[in-house]
Amino acid sequence: MLSDIEIANAATLRPIRDVAAETLGIDEDHLVPYGHYKAKVDIGYLASLADRPMGRLILMTALSPTPPGEGKTTTTVGLTDALFGLGHKSMACLREPSMGPVFGMKGGAAGGGYSQVVPMTDINLHFTGDFAAIAAANNLLSALIDNHIHHGNELDIDVRSVTWKRVLDMNDRALRDTTVALGGYGNGFPRSEGFDIVVASELMAIFCLTESWGDLKRRIGDIVIGYNRAGNPVTARELDAHGAMSVLLRDALAPNLVQTLEGAPAFVHGGPFANIAHGCSSVMATRAGLRLADYVVTEAGFGADLGAEKFVDIKCRKSGLRPDLAVVVATVRALKYHGGVALADLGTEDLGAVERGMANLRRHLHNIRHVYGVRCVVAVNRFPTDTTAEIDKVVELVAAEGVQAYPATHFADGGAGALELAKGVLQALDEPSPYEFSFTYPDELPLTEKVEAVATKLYGARQVTWDSKARRRLQRFERDGFADLPVCIAKTQYSFSTDASLVGAPSGHELHVREVRLSAGAGFVVAVCGEIMTMPGLPRDPAARRIDLADDGTILGLS
Amino acid sequence: MLSDIEIANAATLRPIRDVAAETLGIDEDHLVPYGHYKAKVDIGYLASLADRPMGRLILMTALSPTPPGEGKTTTTVGLTDALFGLGHKSMACLREPSMGPVFGMKGGAAGGGYSQVVPMTDINLHFTGDFAAIAAANNLLSALIDNHIHHGNELDIDVRSVTWKRVLDMNDRALRDTTVALGGYGNGFPRSEGFDIVVASELMAIFCLTESWGDLKRRIGDIVIGYNRAGNPVTARELDAHGAMSVLLRDALAPNLVQTLEGAPAFVHGGPFANIAHGCSSVMATRAGLRLADYVVTEAGFGADLGAEKFVDIKCRKSGLRPDLAVVVATVRALKYHGGVALADLGTEDLGAVERGMANLRRHLHNIRHVYGVRCVVAVNRFPTDTTAEIDKVVELVAAEGVQAYPATHFADGGAGALELAKGVLQALDEPSPYEFSFTYPDELPLTEKVEAVATKLYGARQVTWDSKARRRLQRFERDGFADLPVCIAKTQYSFSTDASLVGAPSGHELHVREVRLSAGAGFVVAVCGEIMTMPGLPRDPAARRIDLADDGTILGLS
Repeated sequence: MLSDIEIANAATLRPIRDVAAETLGIDEDHLVPYGHYKAKVDIGYLASLADRPMGRLILMTALSPTPPGEGKTTTTVGLTDALFGLGHKSMACLREPSMGPVFGMKGGAAGGGYSQVVPMTDINLHFTGDFAAIAAANNLLSALIDNHIHHGNELDIDVRSVTWKRVLDMNDRALRDTTVALGGYGNGFPRSEGFDIVVASELMAIFCLTESWGDLKRRIGDIVIGYNRAGNPVTARELDAHGAMSVLLRDALAPNLVQTLEGAPAFVHGGPFANIAHGCSSVMATRAGLRLADYVVTEAGFGADLGAEKFVDIKCRKSGLRPDLAVVVATVRALKYHGGVALADLGTEDLGAVERGMANLRRHLHNIRHVYGVRCVVAVNRFPTDTTAEIDKVVELVAAEGVQAYPATHFADGGAGALELAKGVLQALDEPSPYEFSFTYPDELPLTEKVEAVATKLYGARQVTWDSKARRRLQRFERDGFADLPVCIAKTQYSFSTDASLVGAPSGHELHVREVRLSAGAGFVVAVCGEIMTMPGLPRDPAARRIDLADDGTILGLS
Repeated sequence: MLSDIEIANAATLRPIRDVAAETLGIDEDHLVPYGHYKAKVDIGYLASLADRPMGRLILMTALSPTPPGEGKTTTTVGLTDALFGLGHKSMACLREPSMGPVFGMKGGAAGGGYSQVVPMTDINLHFTGDFAAIAAANNLLSALIDNHIHHGNELDIDVRSVTWKRVLDMNDRALRDTTVALGGYGNGFPRSEGFDIVVASELMAIFCLTESWGDLKRRIGDIVIGYNRAGNPVTARELDAHGAMSVLLRDALAPNLVQTLEGAPAFVHGGPFANIAHGCSSVMATRAGLRLADYVVTEAGFGADLGAEKFVDIKCRKSGLRPDLAVVVATVRALKYHGGVALADLGTEDLGAVERGMANLRRHLHNIRHVYGVRCVVAVNRFPTDTTAEIDKVVELVAAEGVQAYPATHFADGGAGALELAKGVLQALDEPSPYEFSFTYPDELPLTEKVEAVATKLYGARQVTWDSKARRRLQRFERDGFADLPVCIAKTQYSFSTDASLVGAPSGHELHVREVRLSAGAGFVVAVCGEIMTMPGLPRDPAARRIDLADDGTILGLS
């Protein structure tokens, strides 16, 4: 089979204005083109659709993934294409890839095989400049903070307390821990500083939770950048930074329209991490999609304990959006992994391991239905090494949970490979849901108890323990008026616990909160459990070394 | 009179595809639109024009400016509009503004009054993402350098010798002097580092001197990032960085087409500093303009001692382009300033000061004609405080030099205010030039003598003195095979000397070279004379505080 970039480069794309007109009924006047195959949809036009009925929202999530991932983006595209092929007005809402992994190890993130969004190289690189805009706005605030301190520090900012970090869209470990403003009088007051990757920034989370230009500015104004020496929070608003930062994000806030390889429309917009942030594409895009299409398929990062939980408890809570159905991506490989098989041996048939690994999927299915109150089906994303016996076993085990599982081959076959899945989804949506949507915890629960609710209800943890500094900080957040915020738990995606090696469905473990962070603009409190990387590094032999530009402009080596 | 942004916001823009088709004969298929009013012109299409005859190239330069500037960009637009209004195929080639000054003190740089390029807010902010692309490519190289060192340092890079700096398009003094890779084993080997503003980067200079994708990759490969412990240069090519960096600049390399307020076409592409770099917009844009239009007006940064010298000795030398005529912007204000009047008093009539200040303009006129061998006219950019007697005096003084001066009111009146200037330009171009184009020095002159040639022939300096470290470094450059490169002198724009307060036409001074830097990819050696800021700071009350976004998306407060 061809590589992702070979498939993408060989595709004949339709002009995006034709895709917009024919699939979504959007007139060219409402598009802001970025080349011929990408466009932003005008925010004023989207606002004019407010009275339209909303389509059905399908949440793509997964069991706890293996390191290579289980194909959520690919399945989102495959299902969208299958629904599109069946004659429905469907569209995908995806996250924008970060350039960091593109030049590192993981490569791009625009789907794979015959289930991709295109133009693939554009989407994986600068795309429409959203991440650059977020970085610029973020770093303007940083410059204004240090400038304020330099010019007299009227707000009495305690330089030791500044939590707002600079960002780049790059895997650059050398920037994790730095010192800035060295060099004497002219350069300001030295302080320790670190850079995060753009996708780990609060501003990215704000961008993805924002509903309008006005809302954007309000949220940015609410950002707490650190504390003054009296111990009170200092906001971006007090620095008069929120106006200019919003100006830098003005155009970026419009959702980006592209197409799948099969010509279905897709919004690719925003891309926050699913640990330190909430891991979902933008509310702007999801809401726009629901006004424009009958079926919107959107993914949330990592497994259902992280991405889907935050989709529900953060994105849905903030926006009022509600999923009509969840599709849980499972793979034979991941089930075997959770059944105790080593990564290197996942290609060998092992029905016993599949059965043992089902414990992981079982708990996710329980959480989705009985905690979030969302009905679901399972998509078994088929890999070439899977045997028929293994696939049958998964379907059987899932059925025993009262859930339908649909093997799908969209990676190799495009939308045609996900037709049964699509029909299953449509059938499920036709029936009334037996569940009632619910958050994991109410707003008014104390912050500590919110974390406990997630840990005990969803992760199977026995209890939550706290670093004493984290607990004090949490008390400060509550004192400062942030007690009502939801929590965003940053932990490994590989396990329900904080120990990546505890596969399956561990129970009775402790969730230790090492650190807490306030994202006052985004509107959540992050509980960091374990080591969470907010600035990745490059591997010994980074992909950047093989990425090349031919003299005729062809991009080579991007994966 | 309305402010620049009020004028720009009130303008009715034509779709850029119509401007491209009607003014330059470019079919929509060859445009890569960025919204409806900006487009890149396809590089393949531009290459197909290679056989077309070239238009006339008009270089816009100036006398030594006052701090607020004399209106070179504005006059470039005004003259282009006047030629356009006279029915000629004219176009402007301008530099892209940096966002740093937009949020600092200076504001935007897209012309002013009724001589602007539009869309003004777009051009002054992210525009088509070129600067973000340059920053990303620049910082990818930085990440690869530190990553290489972290993973074993096979090339034996001496961490003390790394000259390649990270960049941001931001005025951020806190990043001038930093330490990176702190924090222990996982974060690499600590070293001191600094960030430059994007426009001060070598990559920006490379971008602006590049002729094609292949040339871009070759130049990037040639970048010397520092030295190994044996003292030999280490290049970006040895780090396998040049391919991926070129990929990041692939799309950016196509010139950006916009329009003037009067509907004339303009390329706005690239924007290197005129001290640390060569201060001219891209060769790609200039060459494309000359294939597409009969008259191309392009500006070079600062006064003719800096911008025009580098236009000639770097841009023309590297590209083979030749100016047909120079227009020297002079103002009554600047002449009075050079005649010894304080900035605050420039609004008061002072014919004596105008006459004394003429010494500055006189030397520039001499240099342009008798050193560069380019004929010229003078544009007197009229300000409201100028008296008729002062304007008449300038015209008379310039005429005494054998040069025609044309007062122009394009700031207030648009192209109509520059009609006489345009007619004068056309008349001059109709006659054979009495001068023969020449570089200030030949390639084969030793690097020290190249600096001496510029200093003595153009600046009126008596001699050049060298910091001993600078001289040793220069010897290293010559030993490493860079003796043939032209030099790029970084000094204050306010004086022919390195002392900004020496107005007029100082003579007999010393030019002290404090430091030298190699830009092996761009292809020049920088001689730093005096303090040159490669990362500006924000003022006490930065413009960012007043820039705002209205709920309806209107951008306010940008100047």
